[in-house]
Amino acid sequence: MARTQKIRLGMIGGGEGAFIGAVHRHAAGLDGHYKLVCGAFSRDNDNNTRTGESLDLDPARVYGSWQEMLESEAALPEDQRMQAVSIVTPNHLHVPVSLAAAKAGFHVFCEKPAAVSFDEVKQLADELASSSVLYGLAHTYLGYPMVWQAKEMVASGQLGKIRKVYVEYPQGWLSGEEESHNKQASWRTDPALAGGSGCMGDIGTHAFGLVEFVLGEKVTELCGVLHTHVEGRRLDDDGAALLKTQSGATGVLVASQVCAGEENPLKIRVYGEKGGLEWQQMEPNSVVYRPAGEPYQVLRAGGGQPGLCDAALSRCRTPGGHPEGYLEAMANLYTSFAKAIYAGQTGSAEGVPGLSSGVRGMAFIQAMLDSSSSDTKWHAVPDIAQ
Amino acid sequence: MARTQKIRLGMIGGGEGAFIGAVHRHAAGLDGHYKLVCGAFSRDNDNNTRTGESLDLDPARVYGSWQEMLESEAALPEDQRMQAVSIVTPNHLHVPVSLAAAKAGFHVFCEKPAAVSFDEVKQLADELASSSVLYGLAHTYLGYPMVWQAKEMVASGQLGKIRKVYVEYPQGWLSGEEESHNKQASWRTDPALAGGSGCMGDIGTHAFGLVEFVLGEKVTELCGVLHTHVEGRRLDDDGAALLKTQSGATGVLVASQVCAGEENPLKIRVYGEKGGLEWQQMEPNSVVYRPAGEPYQVLRAGGGQPGLCDAALSRCRTPGGHPEGYLEAMANLYTSFAKAIYAGQTGSAEGVPGLSSGVRGMAFIQAMLDSSSSDTKWHAVPDIAQ
Amino acid sequence: MARTQKIRLGMIGGGEGAFIGAVHRHAAGLDGHYKLVCGAFSRDNDNNTRTGESLDLDPARVYGSWQEMLESEAALPEDQRMQAVSIVTPNHLHVPVSLAAAKAGFHVFCEKPAAVSFDEVKQLADELASSSVLYGLAHTYLGYPMVWQAKEMVASGQLGKIRKVYVEYPQGWLSGEEESHNKQASWRTDPALAGGSGCMGDIGTHAFGLVEFVLGEKVTELCGVLHTHVEGRRLDDDGAALLKTQSGATGVLVASQVCAGEENPLKIRVYGEKGGLEWQQMEPNSVVYRPAGEPYQVLRAGGGQPGLCDAALSRCRTPGGHPEGYLEAMANLYTSFAKAIYAGQTGSAEGVPGLSSGVRGMAFIQAMLDSSSSDTKWHAVPDIAQ
Amino acid sequence: MARTQKIRLGMIGGGEGAFIGAVHRHAAGLDGHYKLVCGAFSRDNDNNTRTGESLDLDPARVYGSWQEMLESEAALPEDQRMQAVSIVTPNHLHVPVSLAAAKAGFHVFCEKPAAVSFDEVKQLADELASSSVLYGLAHTYLGYPMVWQAKEMVASGQLGKIRKVYVEYPQGWLSGEEESHNKQASWRTDPALAGGSGCMGDIGTHAFGLVEFVLGEKVTELCGVLHTHVEGRRLDDDGAALLKTQSGATGVLVASQVCAGEENPLKIRVYGEKGGLEWQQMEPNSVVYRPAGEPYQVLRAGGGQPGLCDAALSRCRTPGGHPEGYLEAMANLYTSFAKAIYAGQTGSAEGVPGLSSGVRGMAFIQAMLDSSSSDTKWHAVPDIAQ
Repeated sequence: MARTQKIRLGMIGGGEGAFIGAVHRHAAGLDGHYKLVCGAFSRDNDNNTRTGESLDLDPARVYGSWQEMLESEAALPEDQRMQAVSIVTPNHLHVPVSLAAAKAGFHVFCEKPAAVSFDEVKQLADELASSSVLYGLAHTYLGYPMVWQAKEMVASGQLGKIRKVYVEYPQGWLSGEEESHNKQASWRTDPALAGGSGCMGDIGTHAFGLVEFVLGEKVTELCGVLHTHVEGRRLDDDGAALLKTQSGATGVLVASQVCAGEENPLKIRVYGEKGGLEWQQMEPNSVVYRPAGEPYQVLRAGGGQPGLCDAALSRCRTPGGHPEGYLEAMANLYTSFAKAIYAGQTGSAEGVPGLSSGVRGMAFIQAMLDSSSSDTKWHAVPDIAQ
Repeated sequence: MARTQKIRLGMIGGGEGAFIGAVHRHAAGLDGHYKLVCGAFSRDNDNNTRTGESLDLDPARVYGSWQEMLESEAALPEDQRMQAVSIVTPNHLHVPVSLAAAKAGFHVFCEKPAAVSFDEVKQLADELASSSVLYGLAHTYLGYPMVWQAKEMVASGQLGKIRKVYVEYPQGWLSGEEESHNKQASWRTDPALAGGSGCMGDIGTHAFGLVEFVLGEKVTELCGVLHTHVEGRRLDDDGAALLKTQSGATGVLVASQVCAGEENPLKIRVYGEKGGLEWQQMEPNSVVYRPAGEPYQVLRAGGGQPGLCDAALSRCRTPGGHPEGYLEAMANLYTSFAKAIYAGQTGSAEGVPGLSSGVRGMAFIQAMLDSSSSDTKWHAVPDIAQ
Repeated sequence: MARTQKIRLGMIGGGEGAFIGAVHRHAAGLDGHYKLVCGAFSRDNDNNTRTGESLDLDPARVYGSWQEMLESEAALPEDQRMQAVSIVTPNHLHVPVSLAAAKAGFHVFCEKPAAVSFDEVKQLADELASSSVLYGLAHTYLGYPMVWQAKEMVASGQLGKIRKVYVEYPQGWLSGEEESHNKQASWRTDPALAGGSGCMGDIGTHAFGLVEFVLGEKVTELCGVLHTHVEGRRLDDDGAALLKTQSGATGVLVASQVCAGEENPLKIRVYGEKGGLEWQQMEPNSVVYRPAGEPYQVLRAGGGQPGLCDAALSRCRTPGGHPEGYLEAMANLYTSFAKAIYAGQTGSAEGVPGLSSGVRGMAFIQAMLDSSSSDTKWHAVPDIAQ
Repeated sequence: MARTQKIRLGMIGGGEGAFIGAVHRHAAGLDGHYKLVCGAFSRDNDNNTRTGESLDLDPARVYGSWQEMLESEAALPEDQRMQAVSIVTPNHLHVPVSLAAAKAGFHVFCEKPAAVSFDEVKQLADELASSSVLYGLAHTYLGYPMVWQAKEMVASGQLGKIRKVYVEYPQGWLSGEEESHNKQASWRTDPALAGGSGCMGDIGTHAFGLVEFVLGEKVTELCGVLHTHVEGRRLDDDGAALLKTQSGATGVLVASQVCAGEENPLKIRVYGEKGGLEWQQMEPNSVVYRPAGEPYQVLRAGGGQPGLCDAALSRCRTPGGHPEGYLEAMANLYTSFAKAIYAGQTGSAEGVPGLSSGVRGMAFIQAMLDSSSSDTKWHAVPDIAQ
């Protein structure tokens, strides 16, 4: 596709009251590569209609179901029909919709986690292996420039051989019985919609994915625990794990949704023989770099900022000191995805987590579930070849 | 205008190599209210063409001059022609383009400062007094949710009678002879393009505007100094002022572009009889609130966050802990401007700094220039009725 | 003892080149309750003599061995002889010297850990059970006012039932082969002098002690790992553990000495049903308090500061904003110990960790050693009755 | 004096209820160089007696007046009598007591400000010019290691030619009518006891002294304002000034005691052609160093820490990460003063602000008073030769 016009985007899920649908729309709009042309936002007809109206969509392209949308869009002339679809439904639909969309020839940009189980994601991976569409997974945090900077600092050997990784994601929003009245909470704590894990599916996968992304290697074994703190809750809302990686580094992962009072402070720290680094999502434009035996430094996001790698610089829109945030991180994923579409790529889009990330996330959840219910210390994190 | 379609936006200035043009485009795109339809981005033809191409504009609507653009767009059918124009040129064109655009019936969204002199802005104010278009001024920082929160905390009396205000804006990017090779620096230090002040026009007006916005009252007198530190520079690159306000509060304003190593840490602190508050641009999602005799608190931006006023909440797109930044602040101005267009308002748009802000900014610069060259301590900040 | 004169203090260990000896002397001096009268600072005669001289001690009371010192001091007239002794030797002497000093009738203030093994500390506890002297253990961090504040906030129910505790102590100073040239490092990595664990004995016990102190309950089980990263090192330099407490709370403990670039950022976070709190040693004068559903607050150390409990206030010497630090924390232990001496108390001194803390620390190390070498997930932390 | 015994110290002022007296005692005790032997703590006999008792002083050396103390101590045998005196009275006694003590042959360590007026300090300087005693002024903040580091970074040219200095000292404790019930507040707001300025005498002199110390040059002119915010208050409680220095740098000084909610955040920032630095008292163990065109660094206090100058290192007692604070800063002054006594120096003690600092402080206050009441912009800061 020549870069002469906006990519026509559809959305499944993301009606009024949803959180992540709006995030995707803002992010897709930020850099101007997409035009939202259709949607199946909600099974609630009124919500669906209202959402379409508020987005100025042609009512004919606001569909009552995702199946109808895929079918109808596929039937439109090539120069009108949707080219890519954002899937922002609860987790249980991620795979069915992804598969159907891919089969219909639409590029898929899906919220994480990729599936509700390791088996399901493996099936997805099998079926998409030979697909001609792109598949992107919205691990938003991997769109932050300074996460790329951190990755580069590890990859370049600046920290020396890596010894330790600590990742933590302590949220507080599920400290009470939020599911009784909050739509976001209710589906996330429903095994039928969320999958086998609550906290690990919702945020543990982010933490795990961040570790593997920054380290550039796999976590091979873990010793994990899952807890459910709120009475009546049907899925875990908290957990932790000791980790081992391929190269012999060790670490700790913490993810919780009952750390009362906490917002969204995902943080990663990595230490090697020669130094350490730290990045945290709530102050995303800095990487603290601690070279052993020297004063510590703070690398800062922004166009033209000293010390940044190309991957970081290319993900900044403004000069240093003009904070970019969460929507810009997601927009970076959307923009990388757009570039891959322009370039006619298939499979995975450079700069966007793909199916392999989805597989890893589900493998992590599987290992956490296995480990948590076991008296044995270490459990392998399964890999796709296993 | 019914909210059934995107507002057709044009842009004057903002070609390749410009900073603020891209900011405006990102911001206009974020919430999906605008579609960029035309532009006159640069006097350099190649730059102009390339910019238009990179934005997927119809080449016929990429104009060689702003005059041509206003004329040609005005001649298009009403349902096709540009409805609003973003002016992101160097300062000297702000008034001429604003006037011409307003006369041609286009809503004006202009970069600050509004003009190059107090006289020029008064003329603009006179001429637009009875205009039927909207005029908005891009004081980006006034789009941040937590700046609105700060304003509300002062207005509500939560701090008691205000005694002190400190505002500072120490940048470092002009510490060397940047103007010899950096386009952004060269026009900002050229009196013919920037107006009578360099630093005060570029960032002092932001600091001053923030004071009057948060306090909800005018600065009446100041005692200011301007300095030029880099040899050969033609305008001030630094200054400071003691301030007095209408209500009897006093304060200090610092703005500098030679604070080597600093990025963009605009900060305001306000103290009243009952407490104080602090906001800073590089961590824009927090307001530190210091009630006298109690532990200090940190109010945090985000949907549903405790303690926030409606004006702050309505400017947040994401829940707490998902940082929003500079582009979102500017997008908040664009979205407020869009709502005023939808509502058929004229004059100033609710939630967007208007001509009165522009007048105040130029009055500040005038007072700084007068005061800096005088041996007398206090100088009145002129007001429009004077 | 009437509070009419300074307590005569002796010191064993702490010659030139030692770190903690000087800390004890500064701390003992700060509030004016002690006068150092004698010492056996080093087995190196020259060092011993020089240290005594630099401290202006009577050369006759600078002894060649701790045995000689205890014997000679005991033989002095009651109004001249040492009353209390600070033990700041490597770990392997803690119990022998403590026992001998107690038997000779001297109050014992001992560096942590209390012993080199769980068995040894149990023996010490048995023997001192009926002693008429005081025994204090220098868990310095438990002298910080804001650690007492944190403890009080948990005890009072302000956080609700506790669910989670995270404690971390990531140092970097042993990232290289420090033991080859640094006296502090060499004995800490020598099993004969340090005991069965390096990192856990040196700093893990601090982290563990902080958890039990703040929570006011015991850790009952853990799942731990120990690592040795530097080639040739004879003890662990890193580890982590999953934790369970008596009341059902769970948590994570991290302690490492190979987090290159890190100084001494011991940190604890506690979350209950109603809120959370956070304290960190490198900014010791603040407790972040996060009440669920309200803006977070920062409680600040200092005389007269709002929101502080008596235990915290009584440990501050200066008003808010005048930072007190590590030496003041240790001085708080020394001063509490002095008050117990003045009051003629025996056993443990109010406000000073005692033998029971020592037992718990060694129980923790035992459990870590057991767990680390086991394939079973959970190991009980032994208790003294077991 | 050989360093074979503690320096015998007396104290004038500092009875129960005073703040700074206890600070001096803690600080003098920290490093073990002093033994408090006598005092005239309060004109209130009961307070005086109780204070002496609580300090375990010989009742015969707890004097009813400072005159009696100086006379009686002078009459004691040389090996018993006080050698140095700490003056911690309200300001109006600083000069009379300093003069009398110096004449009686006692080294003087005096709280700031040195006097109540510029004339009085000049007289003191004249009379002590040929004295054989040492005179030290307790500008506590100049005892912080990282203030010395900042000074060295300026002196060494690391920042290039200095352009800007910003110093601020915003306290909140006098926001209300504190003087009605708080002894500390009542004398500080009484012209007869405090001198011609309240806020500038109490904290403005600290800010001013910090500027001249770090820059290593004099402030030559200022444009200042003083305010009194609390009704009925007899002295200023707030002010600000624009500054010019000898070398042509410019800056801003802010000092206020009505910044409700603020503790004691004295902060200095310095910017030169090649970089900037920042130090703040409430986080005293860091200097932020901002080299132009590089990531910013944080230099950290502590034994053996990288990047520190000797003057900073020699003022640290503990390794990095063990926070030292306000009492340690004051103790550094006391220890430097002790070393000068041991060395038999006269006049000023190396590392301790002396009379010249006292003169500069009063010159600053004089200039602030003159400037504040004038319509002329700039006022010279008088110098002792004038």
